[in-house]
Amino acid sequence: MVLPLFQEAIAHHKARHESYPGVDYLRLTDNFHGTPRGSVALRGRVVHGYPSIGRILRLDTGLHQQFEAPFWLEEKVDGYNVRVLRLGDDTLALTRGGFICPFTTDRLPDLIDLQILEHEPDLILCAEVAGPDQPYVSGYPPFIEEDVKLFVFDMMRIDTPGYLPQRKKHELIERYALPAVGFYGYYNADQTVELHELVERLDQEGREGVVLKEDSARDRRAKYVTRYSCVDDIRATVDHMRDLPAEYFTGRILRLALYLDETGKDKVKDIREELGSALLDGLFRSIDQSRTEKRVYRRHRCRFRSAENAKRLLQHLKQRADGHLHVAERRLEREGDYYVLEFDKLHAGMTGMLGHLLEGGLVFD
Amino acid sequence: MVLPLFQEAIAHHKARHESYPGVDYLRLTDNFHGTPRGSVALRGRVVHGYPSIGRILRLDTGLHQQFEAPFWLEEKVDGYNVRVLRLGDDTLALTRGGFICPFTTDRLPDLIDLQILEHEPDLILCAEVAGPDQPYVSGYPPFIEEDVKLFVFDMMRIDTPGYLPQRKKHELIERYALPAVGFYGYYNADQTVELHELVERLDQEGREGVVLKEDSARDRRAKYVTRYSCVDDIRATVDHMRDLPAEYFTGRILRLALYLDETGKDKVKDIREELGSALLDGLFRSIDQSRTEKRVYRRHRCRFRSAENAKRLLQHLKQRADGHLHVAERRLEREGDYYVLEFDKLHAGMTGMLGHLLEGGLVFD
Repeated sequence: MVLPLFQEAIAHHKARHESYPGVDYLRLTDNFHGTPRGSVALRGRVVHGYPSIGRILRLDTGLHQQFEAPFWLEEKVDGYNVRVLRLGDDTLALTRGGFICPFTTDRLPDLIDLQILEHEPDLILCAEVAGPDQPYVSGYPPFIEEDVKLFVFDMMRIDTPGYLPQRKKHELIERYALPAVGFYGYYNADQTVELHELVERLDQEGREGVVLKEDSARDRRAKYVTRYSCVDDIRATVDHMRDLPAEYFTGRILRLALYLDETGKDKVKDIREELGSALLDGLFRSIDQSRTEKRVYRRHRCRFRSAENAKRLLQHLKQRADGHLHVAERRLEREGDYYVLEFDKLHAGMTGMLGHLLEGGLVFD
Repeated sequence: MVLPLFQEAIAHHKARHESYPGVDYLRLTDNFHGTPRGSVALRGRVVHGYPSIGRILRLDTGLHQQFEAPFWLEEKVDGYNVRVLRLGDDTLALTRGGFICPFTTDRLPDLIDLQILEHEPDLILCAEVAGPDQPYVSGYPPFIEEDVKLFVFDMMRIDTPGYLPQRKKHELIERYALPAVGFYGYYNADQTVELHELVERLDQEGREGVVLKEDSARDRRAKYVTRYSCVDDIRATVDHMRDLPAEYFTGRILRLALYLDETGKDKVKDIREELGSALLDGLFRSIDQSRTEKRVYRRHRCRFRSAENAKRLLQHLKQRADGHLHVAERRLEREGDYYVLEFDKLHAGMTGMLGHLLEGGLVFD
């Protein structure tokens, strides 16, 4: 059975058929009639996508501009977004884009006790998975030293758009002792001083930032990130600068300038050097790599409970790879209780460009 | 009379009619059948455009890669490119894009003795005009403290594609004592050490870089810029970051990394801080400007011999202004022998974005 919304989305090339062993499903590849990209239809039910949250770059004006009621403040963790749910006997983790993620799905038993989904079978846990040993994003929080951790930050219900109310979410997180993002309390838009203090503390701890969630029927939200996050995003990705939109970098530099302008330009004495280093030292590394290995790549390492899921992840990454990114398996071996998969993400644009330039090639710009 | 190439270009929307008091002309808006953008047909004659010169980012490999014969090394000056010529009684300066430039045309008598064009009426002088008081580019060499200077670097002939041979050019520059870019001599691709020393010296003098011109029939050329130039370009433009392609910035950061990798990463101890400062301090300035003046702009000041030409320049800039750039006259007054024009270039993208963000607006990225 194909649900009418997805039927129409397919006709408009906004949805695609996907398959995963035991599950065929449909996935919205774009926002469609108000339903977010990454929404999924499987076994006749709909798992709504996790909507984009707008960003403010100033607390001084942004709080009053965006919020009419008090709001909760929660930690924003630097990882990738998943939705975890139970369908029949299967527990699945969906990525932001709506793919069933073989890695997260495999590792769920290590990351969270899912008893809650037996008691609340319609529940969807929205969570961030973060750490050095995951297949997707380049950066991770410095306080997660190995593998990955999962942090719940929202809940939804199958077949229902929108989030569970905050109080209900907090109650369930507490009752089931779920791993969750930091909850920093309840504030109003006049508490700029307290919020600045809080964000500066998060900044010093190397945390990405905060999400503000209004206590109102409209459930307005906004995110705000730290100085640390702006620089760390650059540091984590500049080695493949050419394979990302250039706006990725200029946008973060502007964010940083607005953050510093608000919190004190000279508070962080060496911020200029830190930014310059994030940019240059990362590029020096890829120049070295291009010279010695003739390609620019990054090695990823993930642990799996099942070798089968490791192979599924590789297949998933290869299918999703585009002109920018090639994926090459290095090894898949049993180590203790896990299968360790190592693979390289080859950055095709950076490899091509640095190769050309280091050989003395011409560019016209 | 419209020349066949231009006739065809007009049919393909690659040429446009332009007018200047006393001269109607045609201008190629794109490269067309091997004839460069900025080529101009006026009074039945053709002034060829100044072709793009490719860039190398490494001397170590680039010299051997690009050059089969020895080459001359000339200074690359940070200004705007003009072609100066005489047609009948008129002496004109064309911009790179092929517009008759009211500012340069007005100031020619101050910048160069054009007796040469009386003796060689077919000659076109290709030159860079640089300095703080000009209407076009944001940066300028630190050793030009006021107004502008003109530096000849090539010669062409009317109706003829291609440049005059180097030796002929040097001879004419010497005979007529023309102001010219620095000529640094004759080298071959094995002289990397000498070239590195030369470029490092130029770097310390705040010069933009060099153009290499092969001593061969094919007249192969390449340009190579200094560390100084990479950072200075960023410093000169980051205040209107949003109104330039983001690649403008990432490209220069990559150039800088490749330059430092070749010449010594730790030779310039504070280069990281210098890059970070070029980015952040410029943005701080536009944030301040946006806060206090509600817009991001830069004031330009140019001297003219004739008030008429000042008005023509304003009109030219206004006609060329697009969504990114608005031009507003501030004053036009006689000061000593000159009319001084002051005008503001308003950067619409940066004004809009900073206004929105400083007011606490949301962005989705």
